[in-house]
Amino acid sequence: MVTVVVMPEPGAPLELRDIDPPALEPGGVLMRTLGSEVCGTDAHLWQGQLAGVPYPIIPGHVSVGRVTALDARAGTPRDVSGAPLAIGQVVTFLDVYGTCGRCWYCTVGHATTRCPERKVYGVTLSADDGLYGGWAEQIHLKPGVHVVPLPEELGWREFLAGGCGMPTALHAVTLADIAFGDTVVVQGAGPVGLCAAVLAQLRGAGRVVVVGGPEVRLRAASRFGADAVIDITRTTADERREQVLELTGGRGADVTIEATGVADAVPEGMRLTRDAGRYVVVGQYTDTGAASFNPHLDLNQKHLDVRGCWGSDAGHLYRAVQVMARYRDRFRWTELISREYSLAEAENALEDVTRQRVVKALVVP
Amino acid sequence: MVTVVVMPEPGAPLELRDIDPPALEPGGVLMRTLGSEVCGTDAHLWQGQLAGVPYPIIPGHVSVGRVTALDARAGTPRDVSGAPLAIGQVVTFLDVYGTCGRCWYCTVGHATTRCPERKVYGVTLSADDGLYGGWAEQIHLKPGVHVVPLPEELGWREFLAGGCGMPTALHAVTLADIAFGDTVVVQGAGPVGLCAAVLAQLRGAGRVVVVGGPEVRLRAASRFGADAVIDITRTTADERREQVLELTGGRGADVTIEATGVADAVPEGMRLTRDAGRYVVVGQYTDTGAASFNPHLDLNQKHLDVRGCWGSDAGHLYRAVQVMARYRDRFRWTELISREYSLAEAENALEDVTRQRVVKALVVP
Amino acid sequence: MVTVVVMPEPGAPLELRDIDPPALEPGGVLMRTLGSEVCGTDAHLWQGQLAGVPYPIIPGHVSVGRVTALDARAGTPRDVSGAPLAIGQVVTFLDVYGTCGRCWYCTVGHATTRCPERKVYGVTLSADDGLYGGWAEQIHLKPGVHVVPLPEELGWREFLAGGCGMPTALHAVTLADIAFGDTVVVQGAGPVGLCAAVLAQLRGAGRVVVVGGPEVRLRAASRFGADAVIDITRTTADERREQVLELTGGRGADVTIEATGVADAVPEGMRLTRDAGRYVVVGQYTDTGAASFNPHLDLNQKHLDVRGCWGSDAGHLYRAVQVMARYRDRFRWTELISREYSLAEAENALEDVTRQRVVKALVVP
Amino acid sequence: MVTVVVMPEPGAPLELRDIDPPALEPGGVLMRTLGSEVCGTDAHLWQGQLAGVPYPIIPGHVSVGRVTALDARAGTPRDVSGAPLAIGQVVTFLDVYGTCGRCWYCTVGHATTRCPERKVYGVTLSADDGLYGGWAEQIHLKPGVHVVPLPEELGWREFLAGGCGMPTALHAVTLADIAFGDTVVVQGAGPVGLCAAVLAQLRGAGRVVVVGGPEVRLRAASRFGADAVIDITRTTADERREQVLELTGGRGADVTIEATGVADAVPEGMRLTRDAGRYVVVGQYTDTGAASFNPHLDLNQKHLDVRGCWGSDAGHLYRAVQVMARYRDRFRWTELISREYSLAEAENALEDVTRQRVVKALVVP
Repeated sequence: MVTVVVMPEPGAPLELRDIDPPALEPGGVLMRTLGSEVCGTDAHLWQGQLAGVPYPIIPGHVSVGRVTALDARAGTPRDVSGAPLAIGQVVTFLDVYGTCGRCWYCTVGHATTRCPERKVYGVTLSADDGLYGGWAEQIHLKPGVHVVPLPEELGWREFLAGGCGMPTALHAVTLADIAFGDTVVVQGAGPVGLCAAVLAQLRGAGRVVVVGGPEVRLRAASRFGADAVIDITRTTADERREQVLELTGGRGADVTIEATGVADAVPEGMRLTRDAGRYVVVGQYTDTGAASFNPHLDLNQKHLDVRGCWGSDAGHLYRAVQVMARYRDRFRWTELISREYSLAEAENALEDVTRQRVVKALVVP
Repeated sequence: MVTVVVMPEPGAPLELRDIDPPALEPGGVLMRTLGSEVCGTDAHLWQGQLAGVPYPIIPGHVSVGRVTALDARAGTPRDVSGAPLAIGQVVTFLDVYGTCGRCWYCTVGHATTRCPERKVYGVTLSADDGLYGGWAEQIHLKPGVHVVPLPEELGWREFLAGGCGMPTALHAVTLADIAFGDTVVVQGAGPVGLCAAVLAQLRGAGRVVVVGGPEVRLRAASRFGADAVIDITRTTADERREQVLELTGGRGADVTIEATGVADAVPEGMRLTRDAGRYVVVGQYTDTGAASFNPHLDLNQKHLDVRGCWGSDAGHLYRAVQVMARYRDRFRWTELISREYSLAEAENALEDVTRQRVVKALVVP
Repeated sequence: MVTVVVMPEPGAPLELRDIDPPALEPGGVLMRTLGSEVCGTDAHLWQGQLAGVPYPIIPGHVSVGRVTALDARAGTPRDVSGAPLAIGQVVTFLDVYGTCGRCWYCTVGHATTRCPERKVYGVTLSADDGLYGGWAEQIHLKPGVHVVPLPEELGWREFLAGGCGMPTALHAVTLADIAFGDTVVVQGAGPVGLCAAVLAQLRGAGRVVVVGGPEVRLRAASRFGADAVIDITRTTADERREQVLELTGGRGADVTIEATGVADAVPEGMRLTRDAGRYVVVGQYTDTGAASFNPHLDLNQKHLDVRGCWGSDAGHLYRAVQVMARYRDRFRWTELISREYSLAEAENALEDVTRQRVVKALVVP
Repeated sequence: MVTVVVMPEPGAPLELRDIDPPALEPGGVLMRTLGSEVCGTDAHLWQGQLAGVPYPIIPGHVSVGRVTALDARAGTPRDVSGAPLAIGQVVTFLDVYGTCGRCWYCTVGHATTRCPERKVYGVTLSADDGLYGGWAEQIHLKPGVHVVPLPEELGWREFLAGGCGMPTALHAVTLADIAFGDTVVVQGAGPVGLCAAVLAQLRGAGRVVVVGGPEVRLRAASRFGADAVIDITRTTADERREQVLELTGGRGADVTIEATGVADAVPEGMRLTRDAGRYVVVGQYTDTGAASFNPHLDLNQKHLDVRGCWGSDAGHLYRAVQVMARYRDRFRWTELISREYSLAEAENALEDVTRQRVVKALVVP
């Protein structure tokens, strides 16, 4: 039997359950979980803020495990670089799977995030159907799941310190199209914001400013190389704008990346950005209501380039793994981890994340 | 003496004045005006909606004239393709001149629209200083003004039928990055919107839908090839969204181009666009107040790409001229002209434009 | 029994064979062929110039047919826009199928042309395995083949007049990133070159120059809107360069698109292009040997942007269909068809294509 | 009197001359030279490999100096960020000046490298006309020269350690459009190659491989973070290809950057790059003859993206300065400097650079 954490429905206490291990189909893989992350999405799931979730679910969408079984009847399952998987290998996988490759969005629109067949481990797969979430002793990778091995030099804790924040931020920073020497403002100091602040330095930004809170997170931002931090708990929007203008010769940020989860941060971010600058919005993952902006001043006259960033794909995950391995001497990823929790403590983890008492929390079965 | 139209201050009646012709500096050019356009900007100037205007001004920022004098002491003045100008040649010119080529925006930001030295004929140059507007018998082109000759086959009326709407729309449609076969929605059926609807067809759009009014303009849109028009005076925003979804298999427009001048059109345009689509905002030329949108639904989850488009440069003007000449058999540009006005009738022209009684109005001295 | 044309091996006479119709798998589709094109690739196949071809094959990779059977056991098969297919519907399909969506090229490199699972109807599928080519009374679409219905207004002959040349050219012209008013030189007046010359006009090119031959094809180029043609049988490379420079104020083409199949055309194309211009190479489909160029003069000092274009995907095909339907009043596609051949005459078709006696040849069962 | 080094003509011994300091025009600046670099271009100039050079010249096109005089009659001269210059300030400047902002290349083509008014300090300005090169006690900045102050924390030696190699490489690496985690091969281990290897890491490359020699330069490459080096003096082209394929799972480099100055390196670089990869050619600064490639295999089937990179502008220089200042803790720039030479020793410097005995040589008056 496999012990798993189950979120029965929004707001209800988490439960531990024992589930039979699955019979593998051809191409299927079973792995023993080394660790799984707790992220804002899990908190949103618990608060019932996401539509279309088939509760009960096993939370945990970014995880690392050791391959314990694989079904090679249709050929040995392969990782995304085409190499065959092996028992004992330490791997992670993309939470999104099942995009069809045939629908309009997959073939013409090149926006697989809108494929109707798209499923997400830990989010849109039910605990009633199997081991499809990371807060569990084992995880069942269905045929076709995108598997990415961790390079030997990258420990699983190091990778999970970034968690889903790293591929998400990598997608956002890629969209942000930072030029060498640009001043980059990151709104938000949670895992996505901190990862974005790091990745901006790995794009050659000239100055990285993190606007967020609370203080524990801003300290992490500074430790991870932010040139300046602005505490939102001690400043007004006008004061923040003043500070950014001062740092940029009165122009504003060349590039701003939003990772806050607060609707009003978006018009504020427009105003932190210089004329003809770029603004990537990645943090509005749930509906927190409307915001007001001035289309003439904030968008048109400013000739701002605004890019909504949603989801990440196997390429983002693969690249995140390579980058974390390559630059692990420069950035000590594990310092992002505040605490580890057993399966039985998963609810505490959720509470700590909800109240922003931690930077990154891991569930370690 | 040269007779000119002067706008003494916002709201005041226009006046005719006689001004001494200028002494040319080396590189300067004098031209006899063949025609000058009346555009929404002129109406905004009269209503006092633009900041930093040094009234009194001679309105008219896009014009065509015949070269009558040029000062060749420092070499014959040249057009933007490097050819020397000649007396008698029919030319237009970019209203923007004077960008310095040295400031941060000119050299690092590559956003010359923010160059502090930037001046605009007919807008930011005073009638007290000279013949710097098109509603005049003659126009004085200072050294360095970007001059574009009209190809022989392109009549001056044809070019002015596009007026400033054509380079503006060309800039917007270029930014819109239309793919072959895309469904393009254009919001607004004024000169910029109509030009955008034409240019979208010259980018290989699969379907062009114009959302606007009044009916006279929508009829022009259809005549110029729009596949469908939606009359804003007879529909609600919800109905318009329904119609666009119906035309696009429930997805929304691949690309939407805003050319309305109404703040609320912007969130509406976001909602007319499909997930992972593109939205170019070019019509918010003056401040018409705030608008409300939902950052989660309208931007982030939708992973929309929103691009503010401001100003146009010599390249846009040059390309607009080439395109109008090349495709004049396909599109009968002069049908966009509703009426021509003498200098003495310029105020009537302004009124007709303000009340949207005409599509394109020309001042012909 | 289904009559098909079989190419037993390179150089051997084509044969007619009768093959049993297949049993459909879930998601499979059978269609009665209305027409199939003959293209340069078929000539290359006959000359044995392509590697990895599992002769015997049924040639014909772009075809139109009427759906006669479909297996709906796993849900009604759908077209690329997500609509269910229906018996009697007229459709085309992408010749490439089977890309895996899991390998490095599919997920990280985003270059599905290099997916090892990629197969091509009429090229890399054997006649021994089934009805996998278009020169046949019926075609078997395996589950997952990308199907694109023809809009009602677009006749199947019209679509086939473009054949594989149209999506190929659409891919190349998209890569070419033509700006409004650009001078575009197309090298080659075969189907890909002619389609590129048309599509360049649908991107708003200011001038389209076709360099090629023989005269029958150049006449087609002119009829389809080329502003100038240069006959390679009557000019030297130097004369061609002279002519292009003359047309462009001494600068050269803004954009050049190569569609010739001759290695030496590539350095020539570099020299026809202006400094800082763009050069798309799409016609070097088979190995015709080496060519010599000067990296300093032809590439670096010229700061040329050179883009190899290979294959086309479902999006290109879908968009080609939409564009051909939308602009069929402007371009009379069927004028590209020189002749139709029965299955029994397929070898004549191959010979006529090989000797460039026709522009576009169709096989009509 | 100001002592300067003069290169009288190709091949002739360098001379020391004394020149009268200039009278400044409005906007002109005079600076006392702190240091000036010696680069491959200077060797090319001495070997007479560049066309259109008005010998005698004062070599030295990238330099740092302290402002000693400025003419403020038309307003205090400003740096590229718009701040007024001050006596005593330490600044560098763009060697290119005079681009007109009016010609076709400046306005329509957006390729100012082809502006006919373009001049280059130390290259296309004659010693007979003034202090227009860096190997001199003083340098005269004409009005309109783009001046970039060094941030306080960046020593002038640090900046000159990059020399013109840094903005050149920054331009090339920007064009290279490196994605996070990409494998980047740099051909050439001279100053441009080494700077490119560093900047690739500042774009988040997953692996940087430097192919070049001699060993002293490869050791520098390793010290500056290259993950692997391949010595061209000990390998054949086939062996180099083997090694790159081995490092990349048989695919080849995602991105290759050429910085060698040898024609045959270009086809080799194409073959080091993966299918659908990108190849930037920046090192073919002089004509070293033709090279042979296979358009089918090396370009089209490979669907390679090849970008010639020529010159750099004020934005590249400004960004290079910001990046060098920001990441000076991570990369010890001055380790690139092999030796400093007095004005009297300038000829030795040229010889050492020509024979590749040094990585970076400075002239320090």
